[in-house]
Amino acid sequence: MVKSFIEENKDRFLEELFDFLRIPSISAQNERKEDMLKTADFLKRKLFDAGVDSAEVMATDGHPVVVAQKIINPSLPTVMIYGHYDVQPVDPIELWKSAPFLPEVRDGKIYARGANDNKGQLYMHIKALEFMVKNNSLPCNVKFIIEGEEEIGSPNLKKFCIAHQDILNCDVILVSDTTLISFDTPSITVGLRGLAYLEVEVIGPDHDLHSGLFGGAVANPINVLATMIAKLKDDKQRITIPEFYTDVVSISNQEREDMAKAPFDIQKYKKSLAISEVLGEEGYSTIERTGIRPTLDVCGIWGGYTGEGAKTVLPSKAYAKISMRLVPNQTPGKIAELFENYFLKLAPAGVQVKVNYLHGGMAYVSPMDTKAYKAAEKSMIQSFGKKPIPFRSGGSIPVIADFEQVLGVKSILMGFGLESDAIHSPNENFSLNLFYKGIETIPYFFKYYTEK
Amino acid sequence: MVKSFIEENKDRFLEELFDFLRIPSISAQNERKEDMLKTADFLKRKLFDAGVDSAEVMATDGHPVVVAQKIINPSLPTVMIYGHYDVQPVDPIELWKSAPFLPEVRDGKIYARGANDNKGQLYMHIKALEFMVKNNSLPCNVKFIIEGEEEIGSPNLKKFCIAHQDILNCDVILVSDTTLISFDTPSITVGLRGLAYLEVEVIGPDHDLHSGLFGGAVANPINVLATMIAKLKDDKQRITIPEFYTDVVSISNQEREDMAKAPFDIQKYKKSLAISEVLGEEGYSTIERTGIRPTLDVCGIWGGYTGEGAKTVLPSKAYAKISMRLVPNQTPGKIAELFENYFLKLAPAGVQVKVNYLHGGMAYVSPMDTKAYKAAEKSMIQSFGKKPIPFRSGGSIPVIADFEQVLGVKSILMGFGLESDAIHSPNENFSLNLFYKGIETIPYFFKYYTEK
Repeated sequence: MVKSFIEENKDRFLEELFDFLRIPSISAQNERKEDMLKTADFLKRKLFDAGVDSAEVMATDGHPVVVAQKIINPSLPTVMIYGHYDVQPVDPIELWKSAPFLPEVRDGKIYARGANDNKGQLYMHIKALEFMVKNNSLPCNVKFIIEGEEEIGSPNLKKFCIAHQDILNCDVILVSDTTLISFDTPSITVGLRGLAYLEVEVIGPDHDLHSGLFGGAVANPINVLATMIAKLKDDKQRITIPEFYTDVVSISNQEREDMAKAPFDIQKYKKSLAISEVLGEEGYSTIERTGIRPTLDVCGIWGGYTGEGAKTVLPSKAYAKISMRLVPNQTPGKIAELFENYFLKLAPAGVQVKVNYLHGGMAYVSPMDTKAYKAAEKSMIQSFGKKPIPFRSGGSIPVIADFEQVLGVKSILMGFGLESDAIHSPNENFSLNLFYKGIETIPYFFKYYTEK
Repeated sequence: MVKSFIEENKDRFLEELFDFLRIPSISAQNERKEDMLKTADFLKRKLFDAGVDSAEVMATDGHPVVVAQKIINPSLPTVMIYGHYDVQPVDPIELWKSAPFLPEVRDGKIYARGANDNKGQLYMHIKALEFMVKNNSLPCNVKFIIEGEEEIGSPNLKKFCIAHQDILNCDVILVSDTTLISFDTPSITVGLRGLAYLEVEVIGPDHDLHSGLFGGAVANPINVLATMIAKLKDDKQRITIPEFYTDVVSISNQEREDMAKAPFDIQKYKKSLAISEVLGEEGYSTIERTGIRPTLDVCGIWGGYTGEGAKTVLPSKAYAKISMRLVPNQTPGKIAELFENYFLKLAPAGVQVKVNYLHGGMAYVSPMDTKAYKAAEKSMIQSFGKKPIPFRSGGSIPVIADFEQVLGVKSILMGFGLESDAIHSPNENFSLNLFYKGIETIPYFFKYYTEK
């Protein structure tokens, strides 16, 4: 039934998604403010087209939130769909094979910024709703909460949820913003890492100096920053920030053994990244390093002369952006504070250091003994023909923990992306097959979740 | 005599220098090729105006060299002036108070890229020649060799000197491309450091990755590069490259004691840079750290996301530009090789490292028991009223060692800049007083150098 509906409408679905992808809704960049509004309005229109009773673009202190609902009977359960319409910046732009905001299909994949994360995966839900409404098979109430600030850490969504608890009450939250292990190995994400993201600045002399006249006598902010970053991890790739691991809950050997059973081919993994060797915390496997261990990565660094040729300068300042991924029970605010205290201590005399905490979020663990989890499992068995594997992702969706805290509702992370989709990177893409497979699976979830 | 000539012509001299400064002759940037030619032609015209017999713009594999001469009697000695018409890039452009190529005078200082280095200091020689020719007081022959590639390491000048030894023969080379200790403490530079300048690249995965999904499991090129840079120096700020110090000639305690007598106020030095503390190799004073010790500075670093806000990326590549200043007897080619061998060894499995040696030059030491040095000393006594102090600079002019090797001629480094002139930095400037003081001093040098 849903399959034939998809088959009849697949070209239109893709065209609509392309319209969605063409709007450059980069939340991190101020000059995209109008495009953000345009995108929210686009969603509102498409939600009405799909059959919701009400849809609204609601202001926040940042980019607006799109809220919609279709209440068929207040006594029935309510599924709330969460997604985000903002995307990551596109640099380095020169590595894109096609323009990031001119979507196109190549080799069965949709290429565009946001193709997977999260426009493609979010749009599946709107089309699944359209099917259920037209087919008269929507078995319960449905709500949508779609934000425009996920890629910058959802700074306003928690406040929004607190202020609007009345319109956001629901029984379960369904989210497609994660990946499958592979097309042949469907999986459901049962864990997300938390995040603390900071920007640091090392300031030396108050102006750039000639590296000959001053080199060797004055602290060079780049050398200093590099040395400070190096000291954040030891030779075993353990993070050296005092008390960093204090709140980490240890995982039982049984759980680690279960994790090791998930299909994972280290050779394929290395080949897909063109690396000769992996590198991570001693004593843990690659899956454990991203699934159950906290990490620290420099996401950007800059300072001094970065143009063509040689400039012999001892720069005044150097900068880095640092992301720490956290595991359950670690608190981003506390981690950011531990980082700052330690980082400031690492600075030698002669430089000033500034640490700016940009955003953060808690980790999340999804229980597997719930009706919702079992409905997700059954719906994937129906569409993929295989039982999905529960899987802990290394990524973060901070708002999932906020939903639990504010609304008291758990989320189901049923995503249809692949790790090879290059989200946050040049040539982001999303499998056309999985886009349609998602639209097929979602109505099954509604059916199994509401059946007696 | 020369003083009244300067007084009568000072506005014209400044206007001519401004015309020179207005041409953006940045040798490191390909798009400035035409401006480089324009600058060379400008110099040729001004040299003819000043009274040379011949002036020519001569091609090289890079930017051209301007050569000129005035031979009054082949049996008399010949002084050759060396200078360069190229300038450093202007970034960070936003820190300039006035446009780098729109020169202006503020508080008695000429502000422009090249105001000191080297257009201002070079132009003093052309105006000093004009005086001597008009006043009929030129006591010997004079030649000019003015290159356009000093700021990129003079890659073609040595070859040029070898090919044109016949037209470059001379008795002494006079160079104004260095600084005075201060207006009240005139000095002559008797030592220059050598240089080895490299660019390094650390390559991890073949595309940027999501720092959540992959962070902690894959070597992050920025973290790796930072750690490799940190390992280039130990806690005592000594460079750790094996054999790096092998060729360094040790300085006697007597020499170190003499150096310590040069006037130097560490409090003023720190204040002028707005730093609370200096940082350098343990066991050496600030003057020694720049004068007699080799050093290593990162001049630029970049990788990952450097824009506004947060992007959670584990980048594919990270880069740095690294400059090592060398002391007499250290060979840049050998040092670059030692660096590369060591740096490659510092890389963990899972990344590739590329090292690109951009350019280098030998250090230089000037003898003080020569007629030329004594003439420079006397000429400064006459113009400044004080005996100049011999001083070892931390900077590099690689071609000075090449001149000695190819032409067998020593150079006199009689510069009129100040350390506060911000050369290579935003708001480069040159004291108007010292510009005129230089024009006054140069004819004295010619007089004392040629007197019986």
